[in-house]
Amino acid sequence: MGCGHKDDKASLASSQTASFSHQPHQPPSPPTSKEVWKKGGRMFSILLAVHLALLACTLVSSGAFEKIAVHDYDVFFLLTIMMLIVIVWIIFYLVSTSRCPDAIPCKDSHAGPVWLRGGLILFAIFSLVMDVFKIGYYSSFYSCLSAIKIIYPIVQAIFVIIQTYFLWVSAKDCVHVHLNVTRCGLMLTLTTNLAVWMSAVTDESVHKAHSKLKKNVTEEIFKCQICQIFKNGYFWLYPFNIEYSLFASAMVYVMWKNVGRFIDHHSHHIHRLKFRLFQRTFFVGIVLGLITLVSGLGVLIVYEVQVNSSNDSSKKNEALTMYYIFNIVCLGLMSLVCIGGSVTYRFDKRDMDRHKNPTRTLDVALLMGAALGQYAISYYSIVAIVASTSRDAISALNLTYALLMIAQHTFQNIFIIEGLHRQPPKEDRKHDLHQKNPYGLTFVNVNAVSLRIPDSGSALAPSTVPGIEAIRPSELVQSLTGSKKMNWRRKFLREISMFLLLSNIILWIMPAFGARPQFDNDKELNFYGDSMWPAIVDICLPFGIFYRMHAVASLLEVYIMS
Amino acid sequence: MGCGHKDDKASLASSQTASFSHQPHQPPSPPTSKEVWKKGGRMFSILLAVHLALLACTLVSSGAFEKIAVHDYDVFFLLTIMMLIVIVWIIFYLVSTSRCPDAIPCKDSHAGPVWLRGGLILFAIFSLVMDVFKIGYYSSFYSCLSAIKIIYPIVQAIFVIIQTYFLWVSAKDCVHVHLNVTRCGLMLTLTTNLAVWMSAVTDESVHKAHSKLKKNVTEEIFKCQICQIFKNGYFWLYPFNIEYSLFASAMVYVMWKNVGRFIDHHSHHIHRLKFRLFQRTFFVGIVLGLITLVSGLGVLIVYEVQVNSSNDSSKKNEALTMYYIFNIVCLGLMSLVCIGGSVTYRFDKRDMDRHKNPTRTLDVALLMGAALGQYAISYYSIVAIVASTSRDAISALNLTYALLMIAQHTFQNIFIIEGLHRQPPKEDRKHDLHQKNPYGLTFVNVNAVSLRIPDSGSALAPSTVPGIEAIRPSELVQSLTGSKKMNWRRKFLREISMFLLLSNIILWIMPAFGARPQFDNDKELNFYGDSMWPAIVDICLPFGIFYRMHAVASLLEVYIMS
Repeated sequence: MGCGHKDDKASLASSQTASFSHQPHQPPSPPTSKEVWKKGGRMFSILLAVHLALLACTLVSSGAFEKIAVHDYDVFFLLTIMMLIVIVWIIFYLVSTSRCPDAIPCKDSHAGPVWLRGGLILFAIFSLVMDVFKIGYYSSFYSCLSAIKIIYPIVQAIFVIIQTYFLWVSAKDCVHVHLNVTRCGLMLTLTTNLAVWMSAVTDESVHKAHSKLKKNVTEEIFKCQICQIFKNGYFWLYPFNIEYSLFASAMVYVMWKNVGRFIDHHSHHIHRLKFRLFQRTFFVGIVLGLITLVSGLGVLIVYEVQVNSSNDSSKKNEALTMYYIFNIVCLGLMSLVCIGGSVTYRFDKRDMDRHKNPTRTLDVALLMGAALGQYAISYYSIVAIVASTSRDAISALNLTYALLMIAQHTFQNIFIIEGLHRQPPKEDRKHDLHQKNPYGLTFVNVNAVSLRIPDSGSALAPSTVPGIEAIRPSELVQSLTGSKKMNWRRKFLREISMFLLLSNIILWIMPAFGARPQFDNDKELNFYGDSMWPAIVDICLPFGIFYRMHAVASLLEVYIMS
Repeated sequence: MGCGHKDDKASLASSQTASFSHQPHQPPSPPTSKEVWKKGGRMFSILLAVHLALLACTLVSSGAFEKIAVHDYDVFFLLTIMMLIVIVWIIFYLVSTSRCPDAIPCKDSHAGPVWLRGGLILFAIFSLVMDVFKIGYYSSFYSCLSAIKIIYPIVQAIFVIIQTYFLWVSAKDCVHVHLNVTRCGLMLTLTTNLAVWMSAVTDESVHKAHSKLKKNVTEEIFKCQICQIFKNGYFWLYPFNIEYSLFASAMVYVMWKNVGRFIDHHSHHIHRLKFRLFQRTFFVGIVLGLITLVSGLGVLIVYEVQVNSSNDSSKKNEALTMYYIFNIVCLGLMSLVCIGGSVTYRFDKRDMDRHKNPTRTLDVALLMGAALGQYAISYYSIVAIVASTSRDAISALNLTYALLMIAQHTFQNIFIIEGLHRQPPKEDRKHDLHQKNPYGLTFVNVNAVSLRIPDSGSALAPSTVPGIEAIRPSELVQSLTGSKKMNWRRKFLREISMFLLLSNIILWIMPAFGARPQFDNDKELNFYGDSMWPAIVDICLPFGIFYRMHAVASLLEVYIMS
């Protein structure tokens, strides 16, 4: 197997010389003309991913319709083959990089932060439980089903275990051997995760639609009680599997962006993550957030029970009214808090962090992109309500809910993006400076959380490398006079992030575990018809749910950085 | 009105100092902390565009269905208001930039090349004719229609005239006053064009679907013959209006990317576009291309006549067979030629051009993105044909056609992207060096077409600025020995680009002017049903048609550069 041919050998040497030299203000030397063209190497892997994703998308969407002669086992067959190829590639990758000492000359400290990897393991465990339930459910029908229905969850379980291990150990790697093979392998992994995600989302939507539409017509009769438990169990665990695929996709994408990248080691020695959750003073944010979370759980349970059990339309309306009122209060509060946070950032004197950071670019793109799902649902709701002639209380609540949903997503995105682009707080660094100067120490001991310290190996603005030279005398004076004011601001931002974080969790839980006011309230269903409105919701809602999960991760980062 | 406050005044000064200094190897000084954060300024305009686009998309998609209580005049009302706002903003922009002498300190020479602006004017003229036809058609129904149906084409005509003038004079501008207003105005213009595009595409699809499905049921009776001519006329002119909107969108997007950008003037003095079409030797490419174009036009006319006039299924099958065979031959030839071109590039010794260039980045993204439309249609076709049990000659031809469509798009994209990323040919510059050295001239007279000469004002690799210092002695020797070989390669690439260009024109004309084998061949329609397959084709085909137009523009650029 060996280390393979190194395409970037020449530029590896020149770049490392540049980064270990004693002139940190000099950018790394420009790539030589012999260096393989990076865009060209990426293009092939992108083409591979696009074609595989389209093929999977075609099969999944065709398999979702009963009248179309594509069946779910065709989809499972494709997914099983893709997962097997990815498993083989991951083993090849792990063996080849462990054998070759200079395969990974540097690591991207921004990639795969510990809570992302922790979340991945949590979702992986739930996915494994789901696979066990699936195997149990399908094995009771073994005689009359095709073998692929049992093989698929078994292969998926192996895939989840191996991929989670792979991402745990390799998420930060900047690989420098087998560049093209690695790019293609990573894109294959990404596409497989997206295909599994598409399949799970479609499967869940079809199941939801069936249980909503056929509930009153026929009650399925199961011979054994345990099959029913297995089936209900794995449908309840689908949201975790869906999130697992998305988390894994995001981490694999960042790994793909980092293939062949060089990062200066200097700036990465000085910061360590210290998540001092309980050393910080906070109270209002977490209390308000916990109240929202607990009352939201209560509302969800009452709503599910009332909507699903009774055919009484007045009880259903009561449940809908309660659901909308809770959401309107929650979204209104969150919007106000986000506006407050953005205003606070306006008065913040911290520098913007403009450095190259694939993880952050992806974060921002995912936040903006995933919000489109909820935006679309809300706009369709608004048009339906405004264009309908009948007016009642539920419609008014639904309209307010849709408008606030748009406002809240917009303000929250602005708040999070501003937060992610701030430099880590300066007070801590100034503090260090004060402590350090009397002793003349040269070692910079940054004792705050400094996740976003820029890597000077990247392209632009090398003179803003954080350190002693970046602090101007005027700021030293300011740090003596204005530190109390600054601390008040930082505390406020922390409270805001904590409240928003907990509120986003409850707004994730509600749709992820089955609350569908979009169907229970029949306004839009009557307006757009039985085929268009379910299509809109089933395509857009998964993005809306993913948005909440992703906002939680980003808000945790904003919390730590403020 | 005045010049407004200049947010980037400080960095304007520092950047210009850097770019006019005598150290071309030094990158421009990093932005100061006082400089307004570019991403933040862009974010608001993006949010505005996203919300407006979603609102327009909701109304347009709802208006397309007869049973939904949103009517086309609701859509026209929104579009009219948007166009009026854009007209006001364009006038404000033109007045404010003409009053303020330093509003546009530099121009992006890559933006708005002359054939793009020429194409824009051509499509604008056809759009105006279409508007005249529309006004004529609707004014004959004036008594029973709402006024907006006549106001809309009038406002659209004014909008087209003013926007075309605006893009003709301002496409290259890098604006530096009213940064945020300009960004929002440009995004509003972009969204308006996209909304007009969506509306036109939907209108045309609905019209096509009606004429296909209702053709045999009822024949519409018009009181006056002239109304019928007007109606047919404006539906025939729709493809031009659709392309106009997309061309304008692309140019406005590049202007938006260039707001607040600084470009070094040095590197832009030395190149001028010299499109020496008839001084170059070519023969095979243009002859083959013209044969394809003419025979394609013949095939299209025969196909349209046979499919539309007769209800005889054997004649229809004949027409489909002829259409598929022509396309298979054409696509096969194009794929082979693209592979040949890519192989030629592999042996090409020219350097890759890695410099920042928003126009090129957009070109590549649009090529890759627009190809997805045709990919999706082809994959759905393949799945339908493979999963169907019945096999006949038409299905085999359709399958080959779909597979070749995928292959041709892929190979053509690789060829174009490689071509766009090449430096302009070196021989000309070496030639200049030879001519220059005996006389000791310092003025670099590049007499070839050098569209892609990098701007050293952008971020990376300032040492590869074209000029005398970039040419190594080994290359000088090579230029003496290998210039014949090089010329043969360049000639081959030119032939290829010219053939591909003409072939793409005929592949644009065919679907744009009504050939719909996707519906005439009823395989997929039976497989996916009457609602899903039209939805797939109507959403994806406009992107496929746009791909062809855009490929023509890109191939023209590749032709000029090789």
